[in-house]
Amino acid sequence: MSLEPSPSPLNHPIVEQSFAVIDREIGPHRFDPAEYAIARRVIHSTADFEFKDLLRFSEGAISGAIAALQRQIPIVVDVSMVRQGIATMVAKTFCNPIVTAVEAAGAALPGKTLTETGMLRCWEQYPDAIYAIGNAPTALLALCQAAPMATVQPALVIGAPVGFISVLEAKATLAQTPLSQIRVEGRKGGSSVAAAIVNALLVLAWEEHGS
Amino acid sequence: MSLEPSPSPLNHPIVEQSFAVIDREIGPHRFDPAEYAIARRVIHSTADFEFKDLLRFSEGAISGAIAALQRQIPIVVDVSMVRQGIATMVAKTFCNPIVTAVEAAGAALPGKTLTETGMLRCWEQYPDAIYAIGNAPTALLALCQAAPMATVQPALVIGAPVGFISVLEAKATLAQTPLSQIRVEGRKGGSSVAAAIVNALLVLAWEEHGS
Repeated sequence: MSLEPSPSPLNHPIVEQSFAVIDREIGPHRFDPAEYAIARRVIHSTADFEFKDLLRFSEGAISGAIAALQRQIPIVVDVSMVRQGIATMVAKTFCNPIVTAVEAAGAALPGKTLTETGMLRCWEQYPDAIYAIGNAPTALLALCQAAPMATVQPALVIGAPVGFISVLEAKATLAQTPLSQIRVEGRKGGSSVAAAIVNALLVLAWEEHGS
Repeated sequence: MSLEPSPSPLNHPIVEQSFAVIDREIGPHRFDPAEYAIARRVIHSTADFEFKDLLRFSEGAISGAIAALQRQIPIVVDVSMVRQGIATMVAKTFCNPIVTAVEAAGAALPGKTLTETGMLRCWEQYPDAIYAIGNAPTALLALCQAAPMATVQPALVIGAPVGFISVLEAKATLAQTPLSQIRVEGRKGGSSVAAAIVNALLVLAWEEHGS
């Protein structure tokens, strides 16, 4: 059984109580303490223990993301619900710029969705950002096709789109790239899940920074 | 098997494709067509078929909510993620005012959370609103304690807070009130779920309004 992360003053007492319930109920798992902090926050935000079996972390993804957050790298999100979900924790920690792809799009490029177009515009501007995708599989696919060729790589790609169309394909494509990534396998995911992953990383980065 | 709702021009083609997958996979259920339109949108937003067994509708809840949306009644949400999740569909349909309880709070009342305080303030101002609660069980409890005593009743209470602390209790309290309600039983729920319920109601209200 992994060590449980210590309570953080960044978390509301109710969140810590909720974490204690998850600690009691989760059962055996193979997460290291930092991975568990992320898994636990995702389960907290969904009340769905299935995420224990769906989360995947590439080697060094968490430590790289922590360092990037600490140096105030931008966080690019696909949709505004993810922005809302992280804005409070970002404001309490490193005040990273948050960029919303769908709002950065202007008009959609021919044959592309608005979020996909916006994601490509953001990637051109912030190639080393942290990318958190909770909704648009097209945005994740576009990033997976563009980023691995570039000199500068994203600090992290959070691949957590939800749904029934193109979602499995986009996640499979991400899995095949060398991009530093935290991925939710299967159809599940969503804005709350992507936000929970970012918020857990912010708490980890802040605790390390403060200690 | 229920009749499936017709495609709506309010939905992106990918959403309609996603609905078609859910129609094929959901299996037997007891929803009427309007209830199914809501359940299907919740499943679309979570990729979690368990919601089929968790949704509860009080008698007349959907028709009352549809009429209220059509007369542009305010929608009170507990947190800003729910607002973000409904803003686009509200703008495409009846442009109902959206009020976010946690932002309406000012300072928290003694012994109450910020969302609870904000919810009570909103209820005093908009007693006949539609209330959509995706996060804060304290806000749902406060509403359940205040509203049933009043002369004017909310048009609908969407009880979908998520989590491990006070969530079951708040939902059980809602179930015992005579308030017009759509409820998610158990620990599951969340901003995306509350928003999906509102968005499904907006589509139903708009289709009826246009036909």
